[in-house]
Amino acid sequence: MRTGVTAAEALSVILDATPVLGAETLAARDALGRVLAETVVSGRRLPPSDNSAMDGYAVRAAECAGAGPDTPVVLDVAFEVAAGAAPERSLSPGESARIFTGAPIPPGADAVVRQEDTERDADRVRVRVAAAPGAHIRRAGEDVGIGDPVFEPGVRLGPAHLGMLASLGRSVVSVHQRPRVAILSGGDELVEPDGEITGGRIVSSNSYSIAAQCLELGAEPVYLGIARDTPEDLERHVRAGLRADVIVSSAGVSVGDHDHVRDVFEKVGCIFRFWGVKMKPGYPLAFGGLDDGGDRLVFGLPGNPVSAMMTFEQFVRPALRKMMGHRRLFRPTLRAVLLETLHKPAGRLHFVRVTLERRGDAVVARTTGNQSSGVLSSMTRAQGVLVFPAEDERLEQGTTATVQVVDEDFLSADGPGF
Amino acid sequence: MRTGVTAAEALSVILDATPVLGAETLAARDALGRVLAETVVSGRRLPPSDNSAMDGYAVRAAECAGAGPDTPVVLDVAFEVAAGAAPERSLSPGESARIFTGAPIPPGADAVVRQEDTERDADRVRVRVAAAPGAHIRRAGEDVGIGDPVFEPGVRLGPAHLGMLASLGRSVVSVHQRPRVAILSGGDELVEPDGEITGGRIVSSNSYSIAAQCLELGAEPVYLGIARDTPEDLERHVRAGLRADVIVSSAGVSVGDHDHVRDVFEKVGCIFRFWGVKMKPGYPLAFGGLDDGGDRLVFGLPGNPVSAMMTFEQFVRPALRKMMGHRRLFRPTLRAVLLETLHKPAGRLHFVRVTLERRGDAVVARTTGNQSSGVLSSMTRAQGVLVFPAEDERLEQGTTATVQVVDEDFLSADGPGF
Repeated sequence: MRTGVTAAEALSVILDATPVLGAETLAARDALGRVLAETVVSGRRLPPSDNSAMDGYAVRAAECAGAGPDTPVVLDVAFEVAAGAAPERSLSPGESARIFTGAPIPPGADAVVRQEDTERDADRVRVRVAAAPGAHIRRAGEDVGIGDPVFEPGVRLGPAHLGMLASLGRSVVSVHQRPRVAILSGGDELVEPDGEITGGRIVSSNSYSIAAQCLELGAEPVYLGIARDTPEDLERHVRAGLRADVIVSSAGVSVGDHDHVRDVFEKVGCIFRFWGVKMKPGYPLAFGGLDDGGDRLVFGLPGNPVSAMMTFEQFVRPALRKMMGHRRLFRPTLRAVLLETLHKPAGRLHFVRVTLERRGDAVVARTTGNQSSGVLSSMTRAQGVLVFPAEDERLEQGTTATVQVVDEDFLSADGPGF
Repeated sequence: MRTGVTAAEALSVILDATPVLGAETLAARDALGRVLAETVVSGRRLPPSDNSAMDGYAVRAAECAGAGPDTPVVLDVAFEVAAGAAPERSLSPGESARIFTGAPIPPGADAVVRQEDTERDADRVRVRVAAAPGAHIRRAGEDVGIGDPVFEPGVRLGPAHLGMLASLGRSVVSVHQRPRVAILSGGDELVEPDGEITGGRIVSSNSYSIAAQCLELGAEPVYLGIARDTPEDLERHVRAGLRADVIVSSAGVSVGDHDHVRDVFEKVGCIFRFWGVKMKPGYPLAFGGLDDGGDRLVFGLPGNPVSAMMTFEQFVRPALRKMMGHRRLFRPTLRAVLLETLHKPAGRLHFVRVTLERRGDAVVARTTGNQSSGVLSSMTRAQGVLVFPAEDERLEQGTTATVQVVDEDFLSADGPGF
């Protein structure tokens, strides 16, 4: 097992070991946000028949070619076609048909004149604009033809896709499965939120933040509860998580004498690929897989609240997105101007929690203050994570740095753009 | 009632009429993504007591002030403090205590030396670095003190917030309610996805895309089904939606003779504020409210699939976000370079569906092709909506325009930024 790898090496090892999960067939309306695992081929034409794009009058274009505001063409209104009704007959010369949006074009007609461009007078209509053949007609199959591939595998299903699937009559759809993520907290100091926090005990908050990190990206958390710091209790909890796709432990897989976690994982068949990443917060990260051919991943995250969230953010999140079939695995990044000078020793990459602010076309960043890995409140204020490269010792005020945007609201706009 | 308002006027009327919904008290772990409706005040100190940030040895800093690689200080290892255990006694001069991450600092100690900076030899330890007072100690209340306001109203609860709430022992939290949105489709041509699409009938896809648009932003859709195009059936469906916070109809509230929707809404007490927005797609948009003092909103969306989605996107989405307590109501916008020249008549603002591509620091946009409002497939390909201002007739290839980014995946990055 390698130790002390770089963040980039860690990410590469993890993503190489991460499978894309197989398909499941879901009711289409439950598939919002999922990634398609099949090519959706249309068995229908959309629209199903030539129909009117407007409320107005179906006409023979040639008869209205010379119509204008001062040269109206007068036609009989011979019949009416409502949406959803088959036309009762074809249009003869000199005739028009009252027609409504979505209604099928009657045989003989080849254009629609908008109601606004006409004047109705009892059973006649005065057409005040010229009509070109095909005007305001939506052609059968104009959108989709029979046998057309409509969506390719890898497409993320949004609202428009669900509308299309409904139009195609598709009630089920094949998408990539969501990973189940077993979440384990270990440590004699840990209690649930309603527990007593005297005598050095603290709340097992990592389970809650990690579960929420899973939910936010669409994975399914399975919280295994708190394991006591004995090999027996740890093993019992770990075994309860072995059916999940991913096991995330936030007991310290550190060098401490009381950390039995690594031994227990190895006992149940985990082969660790690396331990320790040259980053801060979050050095004591372990990664491995279960050796049963099931491609199941094991992440041993640090116990400190910020370190646990940050290592999840940097390594577990992209792995889970890959499992779900996503192609773009990472947070939006931008270049931000630093409002303060940052220092650190060379050797480890620092992930610095920052707040962000737009100033004209630029984005400026300042740290959230206390960067201690125990200070979870700084994580709640972080809109971005600034990448302070391993080899650098100093980032000067006024220079730019890469920032991962973790607060989606920062990207939302204050106005509509019109 | 005003007719033919600008898009900006329409948005202003809608948002002025839109209430922020009241509070509900939720289990904290179900509150992910919700907007806080209370100030969360801490009843605890975080961390609850002084504790070790590392695995190592608790020492008296003064005794290790001269320690270095060549001048180690040797101390007795007098006892051990595990996480979650109260220290058994205080530290005497010449002593150290083995200590683990998260364990309380024993009385008498004022610094922690990391395990990596020591050598253990039976019941003694050689300290190889100088220890400053407070080193590697997390102070009680360093993160949060008793009575501190931790989160203000209006904060969107993310994973770190849920971790903090757990740490504070908060099991419930007050957040803004999610709007229930009654969705109504009207039209004799409409069938459900499993229906027959012969004789001019089409699938009521708007209900499915609109329901998904609601779900995507966290609102709760209530699908009322398809109303036949008679006043009686429309009224029956509309009345079934009157308990919702918002009613969204995608039957045409247009000028067509067959559109009874407006009459029915007025009969049940809706006062319309405007009809018709100078935009394309989507002119026939109506907006009003129920006159019973309940602040309930009525949106009559156009029936064309793209028009329905686009008017939802531009007007219903920001209103629903306001109801949920969000402060930033709009999609991310950016300036994109046009890869083709666009034309239109002056008078209406056009929302042009575009695909987007990064080229260096710039983003380039091209249209999705057919901009017909019946072509829903173009909406599935749209990564952005380009704003073609009402007064403009031409946007030249190579110039820049404002684009609303509707595909969140476009903002996701291909790499981690390190």
